[in-house]
Amino acid sequence: MTAPNRATLWGRTLVDELAKGGVTAAVVSPGSRSTPLTVALAEHDGIETFSVLDERSAAFFALGRGRRTSEPTALVCTSGTAAANYHPAVVEASQSRVPLLVLTADRPAELTDSGANQTVDQQKLYGDAVRWYKTLPEPAPEPRRLRSLRVAADRAVAKTTGSNPGPVHLNVPVAKPLEPTEEPGDVPDSLAEEAPLAVEGRDGPFVRTTAGRLEPDSAAMDEVADALESAERGLVVAGPLNPGVSDPGAVGALLDATGVPLLADPLSGLRYGSLATDRPVFGGYDSYLDAPDWPDPDVVLRVGASPTSKVLRQFLRDADARQVVVDPAGDWPEAEFTATDYVQADPGAVARALAERVDSPRAAEDGPETTWRRRFERAEASYWDLVDEATESAAAGTPFEGAVLSAVVSDAPDPATVFVSNSMPVRDCDRFGRPREADLTVLGNRGASGIDGITSTALGAGSATDDPLVLVTGDLAYYHDANGLLSVARCGVDATIVLINNDGGGIFHILPIEAFDPPFTEQFVTPHGLDFEHSADLYDLSFRRATDLDDFAAAYRESLDSEGTQVIEVRTDGEASHRRRERLHERVCDRVAADR
Amino acid sequence: MTAPNRATLWGRTLVDELAKGGVTAAVVSPGSRSTPLTVALAEHDGIETFSVLDERSAAFFALGRGRRTSEPTALVCTSGTAAANYHPAVVEASQSRVPLLVLTADRPAELTDSGANQTVDQQKLYGDAVRWYKTLPEPAPEPRRLRSLRVAADRAVAKTTGSNPGPVHLNVPVAKPLEPTEEPGDVPDSLAEEAPLAVEGRDGPFVRTTAGRLEPDSAAMDEVADALESAERGLVVAGPLNPGVSDPGAVGALLDATGVPLLADPLSGLRYGSLATDRPVFGGYDSYLDAPDWPDPDVVLRVGASPTSKVLRQFLRDADARQVVVDPAGDWPEAEFTATDYVQADPGAVARALAERVDSPRAAEDGPETTWRRRFERAEASYWDLVDEATESAAAGTPFEGAVLSAVVSDAPDPATVFVSNSMPVRDCDRFGRPREADLTVLGNRGASGIDGITSTALGAGSATDDPLVLVTGDLAYYHDANGLLSVARCGVDATIVLINNDGGGIFHILPIEAFDPPFTEQFVTPHGLDFEHSADLYDLSFRRATDLDDFAAAYRESLDSEGTQVIEVRTDGEASHRRRERLHERVCDRVAADR
Repeated sequence: MTAPNRATLWGRTLVDELAKGGVTAAVVSPGSRSTPLTVALAEHDGIETFSVLDERSAAFFALGRGRRTSEPTALVCTSGTAAANYHPAVVEASQSRVPLLVLTADRPAELTDSGANQTVDQQKLYGDAVRWYKTLPEPAPEPRRLRSLRVAADRAVAKTTGSNPGPVHLNVPVAKPLEPTEEPGDVPDSLAEEAPLAVEGRDGPFVRTTAGRLEPDSAAMDEVADALESAERGLVVAGPLNPGVSDPGAVGALLDATGVPLLADPLSGLRYGSLATDRPVFGGYDSYLDAPDWPDPDVVLRVGASPTSKVLRQFLRDADARQVVVDPAGDWPEAEFTATDYVQADPGAVARALAERVDSPRAAEDGPETTWRRRFERAEASYWDLVDEATESAAAGTPFEGAVLSAVVSDAPDPATVFVSNSMPVRDCDRFGRPREADLTVLGNRGASGIDGITSTALGAGSATDDPLVLVTGDLAYYHDANGLLSVARCGVDATIVLINNDGGGIFHILPIEAFDPPFTEQFVTPHGLDFEHSADLYDLSFRRATDLDDFAAAYRESLDSEGTQVIEVRTDGEASHRRRERLHERVCDRVAADR
Repeated sequence: MTAPNRATLWGRTLVDELAKGGVTAAVVSPGSRSTPLTVALAEHDGIETFSVLDERSAAFFALGRGRRTSEPTALVCTSGTAAANYHPAVVEASQSRVPLLVLTADRPAELTDSGANQTVDQQKLYGDAVRWYKTLPEPAPEPRRLRSLRVAADRAVAKTTGSNPGPVHLNVPVAKPLEPTEEPGDVPDSLAEEAPLAVEGRDGPFVRTTAGRLEPDSAAMDEVADALESAERGLVVAGPLNPGVSDPGAVGALLDATGVPLLADPLSGLRYGSLATDRPVFGGYDSYLDAPDWPDPDVVLRVGASPTSKVLRQFLRDADARQVVVDPAGDWPEAEFTATDYVQADPGAVARALAERVDSPRAAEDGPETTWRRRFERAEASYWDLVDEATESAAAGTPFEGAVLSAVVSDAPDPATVFVSNSMPVRDCDRFGRPREADLTVLGNRGASGIDGITSTALGAGSATDDPLVLVTGDLAYYHDANGLLSVARCGVDATIVLINNDGGGIFHILPIEAFDPPFTEQFVTPHGLDFEHSADLYDLSFRRATDLDDFAAAYRESLDSEGTQVIEVRTDGEASHRRRERLHERVCDRVAADR
């Protein structure tokens, strides 16, 4: 490691150590103060660098990559409000436990709170939303300081990916010169010889870090296993889980051992893939759990975040059941306050521990647990039949939003990454995205459930693999992160973008405010009348407006078979879609009730 | 005040009190949790409501309005990352002392940190960037609680507009129902009768607040007046000052009493307007203060934030002078650390106090102070002649960025609001925006000097008056806040938008990183190749690409005479513009040096 001045040495050392610690990608926004970091990243062969101009989009792009890979993506910006633009993505990363390594360049200490230009208080900028924060010391060609930098880099990587993954903020003050200009004597020639460890680091990470795996308490597992074994109506409920945590193998073993049904959120990583083969993995629950006389479960094992389905959440709230919530971070993610047990452990470890302990075969054809499972199977069959009917009858005419999601999921290639936006697409994916054996990685920003940064998060996720990428977004989210579309060209990510355009906030039709107009239309639905073909032109994307569902299906398949990025707009009627969801819900409840 | 439930009562009471406290405008983004506030704002005749879909743009719009008026604009969003999107504008408001009243809806306390959807930690979300933060109690139909709400509203208005204006954050938790649905008994019928004060408030604000004016210490003023009187080379330097603070009348009195030259930043509120008539108000200093042998001042009075001109800042740094910095907030805004005196007082009050104390007429034709002032006058005359020559010679061919700013300022109507973006437009306005007698309110986001939110800030400023609005922005800033353009239609603001498009970050050409390519072009200049005509189409704005300077001048005048919003794109060469600035700088230095 040689460097023409201390700032360059600092940047190179930090980037060298991040690469050795396993960072393989960085998202960089242009700026001056961050020059030592940007230059070092651009020079480093081991880190792929994505240049994203809008820092808000940049942060969501990095979030998406981290969400898809469970590995940290570095994020680099200049000083000032640039760093504040990261805040929404930092909050989402925190809430949904995605590694994100934020590096904000800062002015040297004497310039903070001095009236100097582009100098703001960046200390603890993200408050409690980060797992770790540190303002680094200023660059100096000193062995201890350089070692401290390597240790901080390794620690940041460990913290962001640890047992409670999430954002980490390193604030990096640097003084001029920021560029790799020769400053004779600034970095002593003898430094490398006198302190090779500090200057070159080690072969591999300076500090090797291993994260432990949180194994559940054995006695607790014995007890929960007993409860599941003796349960008549056992249930596993999986809310949103990041790909690195969902562990379908372990959950499959648990299902095989117990025969208990799994209600799998589309974001759980458990609704799609081999787990869904010949196992009781269900996805239609939002439409029948509130049918009259649907029985309560007696034992529920819950993993992941709060389920997307409100019907499911209320079903669990109202159940007279033992509810065991598993959460490795110990965050008690159960906001109806009816859980009876918390198990702080890795969900996969819990599933395996329980599978090992349940030794009774659960295949008795006439036991209550079989009756219970069959009931789910029949309700699911009825429900998906009704969805098919509704979809077919809706093939022509104004497309029904649910049918779009149904087609998106059923026609998605294997494998694929499918990103679903808040607020309606994820709900419709939950209702209409039928379980499949295909290797679909379905993702959403369900930590804080914002409609900001959706496009960038999807493109960031897409940048991490060769899987085809599908994004399903509403018009407000599409508008909100229109800037993110620049990453298609600048970051080389292709996608099929399904834009469900109901000209405003369709979700408000499901809320009581609908009855109060004004202000309903102007302040809540907020119809904007934007013609998004122009936005596709701006970013040089192909654009097609699907006239009906058949046309959509054709455009969708065509896009999946094409290179480049296509935006397929489906104009829908938010209110009519809501009425159709309601009618479908009523019909399935009727059918399920008749099946008693 | 009647209300069908406690949440509606709470929203109506809060909005009623804000209106009584002087709030006349609110910027609202759509969302569910904020329903009680949104409904109350929509109902209230005394508050104009602007609906802005992207919260980042919304916050900058409110900032712009506050910057133009010195009055608080309320800002309302739902819970979750929506509030984090406000952060960049909150930081800018804090740094540049603009009133901004942030109201973030929140979930009720039991749902925070519970795993509930769209629930994030909003407490102290903006850290130390706000002047005051409070999480309000939850709505209740109780007299004390309602009085506390009125008092909090008045206090928030007082804090945001006080002697150190800036953002205030009220976090507003509310439980369902959020809509004005009838909840019999929720608000007792007897409440209005039993507690009329709480329910109806008072005639006018519940608590009348008056902000004191910070008068300078009298003995200090005697001493500074003596220093100015005996100075041979006295100087007044005005950095950026908000319209409500700049007080041209007081500064004019000071200039008249002392005959001292004023170097007026374009954002000082002192370069344009009647102050510039027959007074030594100068704007060309960036180009001649570093000429060889330009003498040091001996006494400098400084008001406002750090000047835009680096040459001026370095001139002051290197001067062997008594430097008296005036700042009402006591923030010591002088980052070269050479000031000798701080005076914590209102700048206008200081100017008047000094004007009253200086009693010697300063008209001696042969005194050193006249020599000093004449030197400035001759340098200014030489400089603006050179600018005219450079502008005329550049009339055809690729437009020179400086000449665009020169034309923007000299041809701006009287009155007008002119908003100049970071990072190059404000610098070019500083160099090329010649002082004029016209009532130009020139504004910029110079607190944190970000390129985010520029368009929205300008439109927010434009929404506050009937003055024609001109925005001068670079392509990166224009791209960054492209979403802000939706406010042209949705908020009914017209503007002439001058888009200086040099396809990337022109400012980097003035930095040493230019010599290092790669990564210079890809990571710093970041050419994006966007054709902004499509973005104008998206927002239904008229778009014209000026081929040369004459064409620009014609388009500019035409736009100023037209209704609606026109985007005038001027494609420039960032590097060539930089070289021309350098050559002009050399020529004026040579001419000034020859004038010794």
